[in-house]
Amino acid sequence: MIQQLTIIGVGLIGGSLARALRVAGAVGEIVGAGRDEAHLQRAKELGVIDRYSLDPAAAVRGADMVLLAVPVGAMEAVMRAIAPALGADTVLTDAGSTKGSVIEAARQAFGELPANFVPGHPIAGTENSGVEAAFAELYRGRRVILTPTATSSPEAVARVREMWRAAGAEVTEMDAEHHDRVLAATSHLPHLLAFSLVGTLAKLDEKEEIFAYAAGGFRDFTRIASSDPQMWRDICVHNEPALLAMLDRFEADLRNLRQAIAGDDGDYLLKVFGRAKAARDRFCDRE
Amino acid sequence: MIQQLTIIGVGLIGGSLARALRVAGAVGEIVGAGRDEAHLQRAKELGVIDRYSLDPAAAVRGADMVLLAVPVGAMEAVMRAIAPALGADTVLTDAGSTKGSVIEAARQAFGELPANFVPGHPIAGTENSGVEAAFAELYRGRRVILTPTATSSPEAVARVREMWRAAGAEVTEMDAEHHDRVLAATSHLPHLLAFSLVGTLAKLDEKEEIFAYAAGGFRDFTRIASSDPQMWRDICVHNEPALLAMLDRFEADLRNLRQAIAGDDGDYLLKVFGRAKAARDRFCDRE
Repeated sequence: MIQQLTIIGVGLIGGSLARALRVAGAVGEIVGAGRDEAHLQRAKELGVIDRYSLDPAAAVRGADMVLLAVPVGAMEAVMRAIAPALGADTVLTDAGSTKGSVIEAARQAFGELPANFVPGHPIAGTENSGVEAAFAELYRGRRVILTPTATSSPEAVARVREMWRAAGAEVTEMDAEHHDRVLAATSHLPHLLAFSLVGTLAKLDEKEEIFAYAAGGFRDFTRIASSDPQMWRDICVHNEPALLAMLDRFEADLRNLRQAIAGDDGDYLLKVFGRAKAARDRFCDRE
Repeated sequence: MIQQLTIIGVGLIGGSLARALRVAGAVGEIVGAGRDEAHLQRAKELGVIDRYSLDPAAAVRGADMVLLAVPVGAMEAVMRAIAPALGADTVLTDAGSTKGSVIEAARQAFGELPANFVPGHPIAGTENSGVEAAFAELYRGRRVILTPTATSSPEAVARVREMWRAAGAEVTEMDAEHHDRVLAATSHLPHLLAFSLVGTLAKLDEKEEIFAYAAGGFRDFTRIASSDPQMWRDICVHNEPALLAMLDRFEADLRNLRQAIAGDDGDYLLKVFGRAKAARDRFCDRE
């Protein structure tokens, strides 16, 4: 049971955790913090938080658990702001999509990695953002990856694990570098490609007509291009090495497909398409 | 009212048209043809077709409407096979995803473009294929693009138009070259990218783990990579110029994004991502 949970950044991710923990009866008071008062006021009206402060340091006072759910580019500044106000037993975790960069931000902000700091990443979300989109079931059956540092205390890890489990998630652990590589493959690169493709088509002269003839496959394929641009700018910049490495592999394979099309090498296309279909059918069709 | 509709290639596309026309009472007898007898027998058991033949020429005899719903790479051979058996008033149309190549196939097979030949393309489908996946509502509210040739008779165009309208579709016309460019952008390139990405990830050492951490966004993004590999091989090869031109634009824009990530140019990323999100929200969120 968490006595006081402080959530900095009350959007889809933070707001959904708040709703889930309330439903589970796993939290006492929920305090929000952020930069936009109208937004925090709305979160309070919706019953997502009990009270809020525009000052992150004030918001974390008295908290036994603090969740940072801000874009990864804002992590270091928020950590610096709350550092003096964190209690000795307060557990600090985050929901950032990149973990190496958040750990580096903590090192910069705190001077060393605190024993109560447990980096985390819930693998859940929709293309919608904001507290209005938050719902208690977002994490049900989804995975949350924790990437404890060498100095994270087992007790702090256990408390963060328990929080996400109470929200319905399945919690696993891996090292931060491995997380960043896996997520570059399944999330960051796909988002980059979707944004890039829609951007390319939006520049075409006949873009209105082109989108008018888009079918269901296109809508699904580009759904993630409706995600929050600022959040994804931050992720791309903060997972640069892993993302660029994966992008290089992708581009090399795409060039081979291009050559096969230009050279009428249908056998090569059939081999690649068939392997891709088999992989997707096998791994992804548990919906 | 169609007296006898012959469908060559009774899968998702042909089977769904058959079901829709039956529900609408817009067809008398439906005859199927194809290469796989077990498959045709199944289509008959499901009530999608009334009878079938393994000989396409025999199947088109007596038909007032013939739909070719085979992969575009098979169009010319099928046209050659049925040419001697087509009645003088039989309207011939197709459901191929590329139109320039199908028109060229007809020119080769018939020696000239028949007045009763009306190329067409229903912009509908799912990642599933086969007659079991066919359903009567597939075309409801979806677009069908007809690309009449210079020699297509207005009467033949009107009859094909009426057929698709009876199936619930909205029918429009454009020239074949324009069709191929629009579809390269919204359908062929996205399929190529989805197959390519899943193929890249399936080659990674930790592919099992990578797919295990894929979230909903990845499933949506890669859904079209579960499409039929043979059909998409044919489409890529038969729409080569338009597809490669669109691929070149995409790759150039992706290279710019790569440079921005490598150079920490967050402003450029934010501009491109923001423009893409605005375009997708504006054009695609009519779901």
